[in-house]
Amino acid sequence: MTVKQGRPGYNREDILRIAVQEFNAHGYEATSMGDLAKVLGLSKSAIYHHISSKEDLLKSATDKALTLLDSVVAECEESEASAIERLHILVRGTTAALCAEAQYVTLLIRLRGNSEVELAALARRREFTNYLVSLVAEAQGEGALRSEVDSAVAGRLLFGMINSLVEWYVPGGRLDSDQVANIVEVMVFKGLQL
Amino acid sequence: MTVKQGRPGYNREDILRIAVQEFNAHGYEATSMGDLAKVLGLSKSAIYHHISSKEDLLKSATDKALTLLDSVVAECEESEASAIERLHILVRGTTAALCAEAQYVTLLIRLRGNSEVELAALARRREFTNYLVSLVAEAQGEGALRSEVDSAVAGRLLFGMINSLVEWYVPGGRLDSDQVANIVEVMVFKGLQL
Repeated sequence: MTVKQGRPGYNREDILRIAVQEFNAHGYEATSMGDLAKVLGLSKSAIYHHISSKEDLLKSATDKALTLLDSVVAECEESEASAIERLHILVRGTTAALCAEAQYVTLLIRLRGNSEVELAALARRREFTNYLVSLVAEAQGEGALRSEVDSAVAGRLLFGMINSLVEWYVPGGRLDSDQVANIVEVMVFKGLQL
Repeated sequence: MTVKQGRPGYNREDILRIAVQEFNAHGYEATSMGDLAKVLGLSKSAIYHHISSKEDLLKSATDKALTLLDSVVAECEESEASAIERLHILVRGTTAALCAEAQYVTLLIRLRGNSEVELAALARRREFTNYLVSLVAEAQGEGALRSEVDSAVAGRLLFGMINSLVEWYVPGGRLDSDQVANIVEVMVFKGLQL
């Protein structure tokens, strides 16, 4: 994208990143384009040079998070491994995606379904949950996972655990994404008890 | 509380419950007292008969959720059992609290720290997390839990998993709170793998 002369050099990607931070800090509905303009130090018309609407930002941001999740699912499918092995790939891949793009995923997780864009994103998120649940059920069928645990509940709790990373994980902090994925894997598959 | 004649018979508790639903659906900051008045079918002054401000509602709602968590901690402490047994009590009690009062806990979970009230609630929530983490560490010291898992991360993931129940658990649905607690306990302590 071209950058306007004499204005802070934001491209569409920068505006998206900063908008998502603001949405997460104050809520999507409570954040106006005027608020974004203030934070960016731009006029509203300068922002509209890059994006068409607040909803355009929401759509791009949730697409980004959902595309990350989709690529983890694609990796699972391409592996042609057993269900339990694909579940391991999914758990590690989802953890890595959340650690890498916590802000985008936070926005996705907090969607409430108040517009068409939100409802469409929630539907795609549900597809991901369904894939995860089907993988748990398939691995139970293989005899690799406990069959007494309801697969729909287990899948949702597992995704909820991983999603909660966005609340505290700091990239570049004490633990890298691989170390977090190791802990998540132990907790999901082996549990805490000795 | 007295109920105004000729107006829908809301008491403070009803107003609080409905306000929390609105906050969760549209975001606390995006919900005005005017919005609440519309949903309740009351004038703003009729609402102010019961509550002093929007922040008053937020404080009461988060207090309610935090008091529930505090009572689970108190139950653990009174038991004088081993750390692993107290952790079981905490996991079951927190799950039951969330299933019973999902809306209040959802509000608590989504706080962002944008005001004194929110910061105070976040500090109390952090105390709960610290208690949970210390219990995991103590149970590791007893040799009852895997010591290779970082207690701070395990405690947070565990709380995150339980918190995620508010996203999908429906009271009176297919599973009661006890059945959900059984699944959470298996996942946390034994893991999914056979």
